[in-house]
Amino acid sequence: MSRLEGKVLVAQGGGPTHVINQSVVGVALEARKFSQVTSIYGAVHGVRGIIDEEFVDLTRETTHNLEQVADTPSSGLLSTRDKPNEEYCARMFKVMQAHDIRYFFYVGGNDSSDTVRIVNEQAKAADYELRAIHIPKTIDNDLMENDHCPGYGSAARYVAQAFMGVNLDNRALKGVYIGVVMGRHAGFLTAASAVARKYTDDGPHLVYLPERAFDTDKFLADVDRTFSKYGICTIAVSEGISDKDHVPMITKLMGVEERDAHGNVQLSGTGALGDLLSDTVKKGLGLKRVRSDTFGYLQRSFIGCRSDRDAREAREVGEKAVQFAMWDNVDGSVAIRRPVLDYGVDYELVPLENVAGKTRHMPDEFINAEGNGVTQAFHAYCRPLLGSGLAEPHRIRAPRVPKILHR
Amino acid sequence: MSRLEGKVLVAQGGGPTHVINQSVVGVALEARKFSQVTSIYGAVHGVRGIIDEEFVDLTRETTHNLEQVADTPSSGLLSTRDKPNEEYCARMFKVMQAHDIRYFFYVGGNDSSDTVRIVNEQAKAADYELRAIHIPKTIDNDLMENDHCPGYGSAARYVAQAFMGVNLDNRALKGVYIGVVMGRHAGFLTAASAVARKYTDDGPHLVYLPERAFDTDKFLADVDRTFSKYGICTIAVSEGISDKDHVPMITKLMGVEERDAHGNVQLSGTGALGDLLSDTVKKGLGLKRVRSDTFGYLQRSFIGCRSDRDAREAREVGEKAVQFAMWDNVDGSVAIRRPVLDYGVDYELVPLENVAGKTRHMPDEFINAEGNGVTQAFHAYCRPLLGSGLAEPHRIRAPRVPKILHR
Repeated sequence: MSRLEGKVLVAQGGGPTHVINQSVVGVALEARKFSQVTSIYGAVHGVRGIIDEEFVDLTRETTHNLEQVADTPSSGLLSTRDKPNEEYCARMFKVMQAHDIRYFFYVGGNDSSDTVRIVNEQAKAADYELRAIHIPKTIDNDLMENDHCPGYGSAARYVAQAFMGVNLDNRALKGVYIGVVMGRHAGFLTAASAVARKYTDDGPHLVYLPERAFDTDKFLADVDRTFSKYGICTIAVSEGISDKDHVPMITKLMGVEERDAHGNVQLSGTGALGDLLSDTVKKGLGLKRVRSDTFGYLQRSFIGCRSDRDAREAREVGEKAVQFAMWDNVDGSVAIRRPVLDYGVDYELVPLENVAGKTRHMPDEFINAEGNGVTQAFHAYCRPLLGSGLAEPHRIRAPRVPKILHR
Repeated sequence: MSRLEGKVLVAQGGGPTHVINQSVVGVALEARKFSQVTSIYGAVHGVRGIIDEEFVDLTRETTHNLEQVADTPSSGLLSTRDKPNEEYCARMFKVMQAHDIRYFFYVGGNDSSDTVRIVNEQAKAADYELRAIHIPKTIDNDLMENDHCPGYGSAARYVAQAFMGVNLDNRALKGVYIGVVMGRHAGFLTAASAVARKYTDDGPHLVYLPERAFDTDKFLADVDRTFSKYGICTIAVSEGISDKDHVPMITKLMGVEERDAHGNVQLSGTGALGDLLSDTVKKGLGLKRVRSDTFGYLQRSFIGCRSDRDAREAREVGEKAVQFAMWDNVDGSVAIRRPVLDYGVDYELVPLENVAGKTRHMPDEFINAEGNGVTQAFHAYCRPLLGSGLAEPHRIRAPRVPKILHR
């Protein structure tokens, strides 16, 4: 066991998830078990809080309240969108030295992992002994080396439950429905919509991912064919869908004029892509009832929709991070593996370089040949991550009554 | 007890809710207990299914499956947006006569109640004995005579849980957040966002309802004041907010040109209002991080978010409808009363004319003097409707660490 004495610092970066607090609490509670840990600090607003020396002393927080916070979505220590460069990391490192921080745990995505990498290198260069560990977190599920990422399962559960509902809603009133799901470069979250299917005619009938070039003509043909078959069409679309030249569809559909008028195009926190696709369907196919919803921030923050498996793993990945640092005295990024056929996880520490700044995409075997849906392999991959007790829709199966007047 | 022998017909109209199937199942199961009922039919796609003679025989459906469907959101018998006139109702009536329908139950909002009224009058004019009962349902909570409507509690729970989440999310990354909630004329559903507040600085800090004229300058001043105080601002807005001349804000903000270019302006199933309000804040106050979500169809269909109290009452209102028809041999609209101070309900049968085609608005005592929030009286009214086991957010309360470098 490492006997490096000093403080633990834990921070959260990037977009919140349903279970990111589990990882912080996993670090805080596990670190309490090691006598070489003098205090456990939490940085307020991520790396920004480190620069500003905004720390809270988690050693003085009750276990009871930490458990309550663990069950609360979003970043309990608050977050930041800052992406530190070398100079920014140098300032962070200076603050860490001043506070005798010897263990740094940063919960975040691939940008956060890159921050850990830079700080780690600076510590080495300064001959300052520091354990620096990245703890994975992202609803996008796009971290290299990981079978899946904490945060994904709960967001995926939200998306699946949302599509179960809109399936029923769209079936009741008949139309075309487009649900726009988060994910700029990776389609995992959008693909989770497919788990909503129970009955053979359930939607989403079409799923469009950033991993495949989006073609408007093909899209309209897909919708037309589906609508002719079922009298309805339910569609899941990633916010990041782009054409064959990698131009985001939101930019393309808005056209040059509107782009000039509105300044920089924003992808999240706006319903523009859904509205533009709706217009495309209305004009292209002459269909009347076309609706779109942009799931927006609710898919990563909606309280009360959480995968129990995701929560447990997010806790465990925080615990494991502390154990790697304390027992093995190493740096790196904790990665989740799935070593068994049905379901089970294991954790490994991988080099920060393997994760930092890289993006994992949906593998080809998860996407159907037409590029407008997912495969059974994806279902098998995704379903366990959504956790237990998933709701299920039911239909009336009563027999039809023979007609009298319209015979 | 009435000994009028014949069939029961039940149908669903208008937008689906989380618990509308409970009412249908309440009718179906209660009606089985009366020997004068020869069969129980369900109309497929509401009044449209009656005209087309599209019936299913619910007498031949298992109790087990009916219970499963009761727990499923949206309209299990499917729905329609058709608003029958006299001639349409005459066609419905003819089909009912042909099938010996003697009891007609229609689950819906104020339009549906008007349909029941017309059919009822036509039956009387034709001297055909028919019991016609309207069963209330609407997430808008805008039916006259009702303390609250089945469907509202579950949708309100969704809105409250959504705002609990975005409170945490917006606090973590700091910005202005606008959530657009359904409700064209009545603000009850938007107002439910206020139940999300736990900590004194929790949002929504501002709530805008259709019951008060929306003024853009006052809105910007409200946002500016809130943002200066908290460093964030979380806002709930009804889709139906209008200016002092009753012009919907979505139309007003779009401007004449865009209205002409896009044809008819659509209020639901589009993120336009949220985007326009975001732009207004960005331009008016020079704030950078301004985001909006339009809750859209998820607030009435999201599977897995239901108020248990709402579900029980939706069931009971269906049962009561059958009991009124069978025991009292009368027509009307079932209304929910709250006769006790804390919480409890009772059901009364009121004349169809009292409900048909009318809209109930938020009473003045529920809206604050500034017209940008709700009162404690509304909290007391709304909270019980959301049901048991509502999630609760928790914050880290650990003490701050003294600064070393930035002293």
